[in-house]
Amino acid sequence: MRIALDAMGGDRAPHEIVRGAVEAANKLKDITCVFLVGDKVVVNAELMKHPKVNMDRLKVVHAPEAIGMDEAPAQAVRKKKNCSISICMEMVKGKEADAMVSAGNSGAVATSAVLTLGRIPGVTRPAIATALPTRLPTRPTLLLDAGANTDCDAAWLAQFAVMGVAYSQVVLKRPVPVVGLLSIGSEDGKGNEMTKKAFHLMQKIDVSFHGNVEGSDLFMGGMDVVVCDGFVGNAVIKTAESVAKAVGYWMKKEFFLDPVRMFGALLLKGALQTLKSRMDPEIYGGAPLLGVPGTVFISHGSSTHRAIYHAVIAAAAAATNNLTDTITKRIAAMEAMITGQ
Amino acid sequence: MRIALDAMGGDRAPHEIVRGAVEAANKLKDITCVFLVGDKVVVNAELMKHPKVNMDRLKVVHAPEAIGMDEAPAQAVRKKKNCSISICMEMVKGKEADAMVSAGNSGAVATSAVLTLGRIPGVTRPAIATALPTRLPTRPTLLLDAGANTDCDAAWLAQFAVMGVAYSQVVLKRPVPVVGLLSIGSEDGKGNEMTKKAFHLMQKIDVSFHGNVEGSDLFMGGMDVVVCDGFVGNAVIKTAESVAKAVGYWMKKEFFLDPVRMFGALLLKGALQTLKSRMDPEIYGGAPLLGVPGTVFISHGSSTHRAIYHAVIAAAAAATNNLTDTITKRIAAMEAMITGQ
Repeated sequence: MRIALDAMGGDRAPHEIVRGAVEAANKLKDITCVFLVGDKVVVNAELMKHPKVNMDRLKVVHAPEAIGMDEAPAQAVRKKKNCSISICMEMVKGKEADAMVSAGNSGAVATSAVLTLGRIPGVTRPAIATALPTRLPTRPTLLLDAGANTDCDAAWLAQFAVMGVAYSQVVLKRPVPVVGLLSIGSEDGKGNEMTKKAFHLMQKIDVSFHGNVEGSDLFMGGMDVVVCDGFVGNAVIKTAESVAKAVGYWMKKEFFLDPVRMFGALLLKGALQTLKSRMDPEIYGGAPLLGVPGTVFISHGSSTHRAIYHAVIAAAAAATNNLTDTITKRIAAMEAMITGQ
Repeated sequence: MRIALDAMGGDRAPHEIVRGAVEAANKLKDITCVFLVGDKVVVNAELMKHPKVNMDRLKVVHAPEAIGMDEAPAQAVRKKKNCSISICMEMVKGKEADAMVSAGNSGAVATSAVLTLGRIPGVTRPAIATALPTRLPTRPTLLLDAGANTDCDAAWLAQFAVMGVAYSQVVLKRPVPVVGLLSIGSEDGKGNEMTKKAFHLMQKIDVSFHGNVEGSDLFMGGMDVVVCDGFVGNAVIKTAESVAKAVGYWMKKEFFLDPVRMFGALLLKGALQTLKSRMDPEIYGGAPLLGVPGTVFISHGSSTHRAIYHAVIAAAAAATNNLTDTITKRIAAMEAMITGQ
């Protein structure tokens, strides 16, 4: 597997990105090449900081431009043809890379993906699918759309469900993924105008539809796929991060208040480490953009080298399975089912 | 202050409601009467379980009907004229009670409030305002709408902001409440169609508007009031509860794994109790329904006696201040400001 990595994207680029790439190239046997795409002077200077780099499996690809985190996505992608994101995307299109990963401007990644790769036939809008840790260690919940589409049609949500199920089966190896529709009550009639329409569509299509679920069900671990519009998905994910951070802040503050407590915290060191790793979003590394013909992973803007390392693993896992074909077939079957043909 | 309490509403009614009422009547000096509204046989049987009840300050008001948690709100309120919720509302309208509290069907409470009390002039839709604990112990964030309106107009969000600011000043005693608009990025242009329109309106009205905020800002403690549509608000609040619960579950599991850890947890007992109380939504007791001419508090369906006790305190605090007048004046001023008259 050859992974094109946007060296310039993210709040901690290029330092953390390069470090993650070096770790991936040094440690991961099935990664034949990590392409570090970015300003070659900057990237090479970063590489110099690492004593051991497996240069057989790490190549620098020059990109003269980069898109900032705060730039308007569509304009930036159109203006900066030679930005690191677009060059990664061209490498995927030209089969020079099997997948791409960026922790940069997520709107720009999604825009560039659609402009360069197009859409899988029948998919109206690609969606970002984020894996959320749940109470069940081996069963994350895939939430989509996590922010690519701020205003959604009910029909798009049905497509999100089909794409999420395909990813859950093919990549996460869930045999029969259970699908929930994010709403404000678990009863059938609850929701807003859009989700009520989506509910009826979801009953018609070939997915294991559980019905409405609430925000409170997300981390309980019963759902494999939960669909919602990108505005709600983004708000929910950021809220969850915020709560986890606030709890971590309070714990640190309380646990180190006096020597007795500090000793208690020392005895619980292992437990606290387990807790931290259970709540750690970085182990999922990145979120696939589903609905484009190619493997595109979007990592969190604040990604550290660990997140990048895990994103390379996840992108490689996605690329080895023929997800595009599966989604293409299922979207076509879904359309036939809804129209009754 | 006289509080009408729906004894039949909530997942743990009547037991926990009656217990909370008894505690309020026994302990709170400025509560002259708690009216327990519900089936008198059931309520009296519950009261018998308590050895000490201050019956000078606790009265049972018979309500022959009750609305279930899963009933369709509008239909149920119209059909069951003598339900506990509606009788509480009539007591507020007739000035027999200064405020009402219900942990029952929140849709039914909102519907009954509008049908019985009407709306404050100029208010299109009343909203539920939920106080969220933040990293700053004395500065919760008031989030509205928390679920009364699933599909919102931008103009309603501007009204929510004005009502939230009034509540924050008059009841929570924040001198100049800072207002955020919940969106999917902090930059000005980010959001969905509705929030983009709301953003422009918010700039025109007389509130201290900070701009867009994200889910990740909610628990950081910088915002006094955050507005959003009721679908998003509900999803965000339930997600936050879910994360807090999952963290609690993991902590319990890890901290009691072996004797060494158990000893560590024992040393941290005080810290863990502080942590628990910091994350405890029950200390806020209930959420005011803002926009109706009367003090109406909606408590969580899972409320225990503690939540009910705190809701009585909060409702009394709201009723002592002339919030309705403040909201009436400010909504009128807002309309004048937007239309430029």
